[in-house]
Amino acid sequence: MSTENDDAQAKLIDLAAEFYDQFAGGQIPEMSIPTRTKSNIEYDEDERVWVYGDRKSTRSANSVRGARKLLKAVYTIDFLANQLEEDRSSTLRELYYLSESWDAKEAQFSDQDESNQLIEDLEIVSDVTREDFHMRPEESGATLMGPLHLREQTRRGERDIHCQEDVGEGGYQIPNNPDTIEFLDHDADFILCVETGGMRDRLVENGFDDEHNALIVHLKGQPARATRRITRRLHQELDLPVTVFTDGDPWSYRIYGSVAYGSIKSAHLSDYLATPDAKFIGIQPADIVEYDLPTDPLSDSDKNALESELEDPRYQTDYWKEQIELQLEIEKKSEQQALASHGLDFVTETYLPERLSEMGII
Amino acid sequence: MSTENDDAQAKLIDLAAEFYDQFAGGQIPEMSIPTRTKSNIEYDEDERVWVYGDRKSTRSANSVRGARKLLKAVYTIDFLANQLEEDRSSTLRELYYLSESWDAKEAQFSDQDESNQLIEDLEIVSDVTREDFHMRPEESGATLMGPLHLREQTRRGERDIHCQEDVGEGGYQIPNNPDTIEFLDHDADFILCVETGGMRDRLVENGFDDEHNALIVHLKGQPARATRRITRRLHQELDLPVTVFTDGDPWSYRIYGSVAYGSIKSAHLSDYLATPDAKFIGIQPADIVEYDLPTDPLSDSDKNALESELEDPRYQTDYWKEQIELQLEIEKKSEQQALASHGLDFVTETYLPERLSEMGII
Repeated sequence: MSTENDDAQAKLIDLAAEFYDQFAGGQIPEMSIPTRTKSNIEYDEDERVWVYGDRKSTRSANSVRGARKLLKAVYTIDFLANQLEEDRSSTLRELYYLSESWDAKEAQFSDQDESNQLIEDLEIVSDVTREDFHMRPEESGATLMGPLHLREQTRRGERDIHCQEDVGEGGYQIPNNPDTIEFLDHDADFILCVETGGMRDRLVENGFDDEHNALIVHLKGQPARATRRITRRLHQELDLPVTVFTDGDPWSYRIYGSVAYGSIKSAHLSDYLATPDAKFIGIQPADIVEYDLPTDPLSDSDKNALESELEDPRYQTDYWKEQIELQLEIEKKSEQQALASHGLDFVTETYLPERLSEMGII
Repeated sequence: MSTENDDAQAKLIDLAAEFYDQFAGGQIPEMSIPTRTKSNIEYDEDERVWVYGDRKSTRSANSVRGARKLLKAVYTIDFLANQLEEDRSSTLRELYYLSESWDAKEAQFSDQDESNQLIEDLEIVSDVTREDFHMRPEESGATLMGPLHLREQTRRGERDIHCQEDVGEGGYQIPNNPDTIEFLDHDADFILCVETGGMRDRLVENGFDDEHNALIVHLKGQPARATRRITRRLHQELDLPVTVFTDGDPWSYRIYGSVAYGSIKSAHLSDYLATPDAKFIGIQPADIVEYDLPTDPLSDSDKNALESELEDPRYQTDYWKEQIELQLEIEKKSEQQALASHGLDFVTETYLPERLSEMGII
């Protein structure tokens, strides 16, 4: 078993040991975790990420319902500890189904929400990430293309891969747990996270990664944890600036927000997933005006989402206030690919160079 | 320009030349295409794919509406011919936006449905596929893992990639146009197309591709054209049997149907995309019973979908009739990952070996 597995396993077993000690000491076993309601999650202005407040909830065996929850936790800890022992992994859905094979009927999950929630609880209490429990997501599938040479530790041995020279046009497929990657060498000047596949392919076709020494990370809409994790690691370990290029609508600003500041749901993972220094490239409402882009009108739900972003602590900057208010005024949104109305090279020859140099990146 | 580009370009220019000749001969220009309503699409029992019937629709310049359609076709042909000349490519959405830069306002598309439809018309009339026009999809992203050594022709030169030894755990990313791939060498005995990412990862983790010489193609739900294309090519060129492993519900049977028999929408592409010899592994309704899998009840829309499959010419076999009727009787459906209720190795050590040997594949 690797040291990382050892460490994650030890923390899990500590948890179970606590229950044991509580029993042995004549106490009713309980597990205390931060309350995960919105009122107990706050935005830390200094760290620029979401964190939990001080309120705690207690799962105690003093009720049948609470005792059953702790029983499920113990069975799950046992499963995870074995999984790490054998250096294997599984999906959240497999865990849910697998519980049907457990001998104690009471320990089986009644639906998948319950098992998902328990894994999140265990993440928080043990301070071990889901990835370190070896729980995989159902689908991941984002890719990376650019001047980066890396080594991935796979079950079949090490793979040394250069993310331009050793991959096809589809790029390098980011694994479910990017912490299996070691960065060997690179010629990159910055990271460019891109929302849509169409734009990612345009940048690769136009050789933008090559010409500007950019690492192009495809976000595929709302990015998976693996995508946010590798972005953070590239930023921290290689000291590269991170930029985010999305459509110009409130849902895409949330994609930027999730890369930069994390989400309420993953407030316990901000240190692991968020990149608060990430900068937003566009499409900005100001670009819609300046570049006279083809647009669609804002729908009511777009307007509501913008209004709620005006209240969201993550967007309390002069920059975002100005952009969001401008968008509410012009009542228009625009897509990344709308830049093609000025020709297929406009994005790589004009728009991105202009924006990136305004931002001081190139 | 490559020979393929030359060829596609010539066919497009032939189309435009036809309009020119019609003009020169004093005729009103027109374009004739197979009628694409359901009543003119039939299932060819011998070829086991969808084909068009004999009815044709004519787009003629004898009305303002028809003339405008032909104008748009001519501008699009011009754009595509240039794109091929320069060996570039674009997405359907870029084409739509790009039309805003065309000098003739009348040639601009009013919405993306219109440009999508026109590209399909041109595919049918010119007998050139969208991929050979160099039109890319918005998102693709399926992957392949297994004992296959291939060469991909990228814009940056050739890349020789072994789909086990030269890739990370994420596998080889299938490019948008898999016809840029040459198969160099392989040790595969069969192809295993898998619906969900969770199951694909399970098979890779358990080393199923290695142990059984399987090429694992991740379908990612309803498969993209690129995924269906590479599956057909692997079958045809390497003479490998194709098997499809999905969830056990009517929507997943349609995923199988689209790999095997193509879809009504792409009836003109059956020769290019479909693999009528593909075999369905499961989850079969019979498996739900035999392996006592965890299930969910059928919803009304599930039942309706099953009923309509009973009428669908693609499922008119004893096998499908029996399975679908059994499912309507037990009123249950089950997921691939439900096999985990018998342990994480059950799928690779018991279920797949049993099914594949029943089917005569291994």
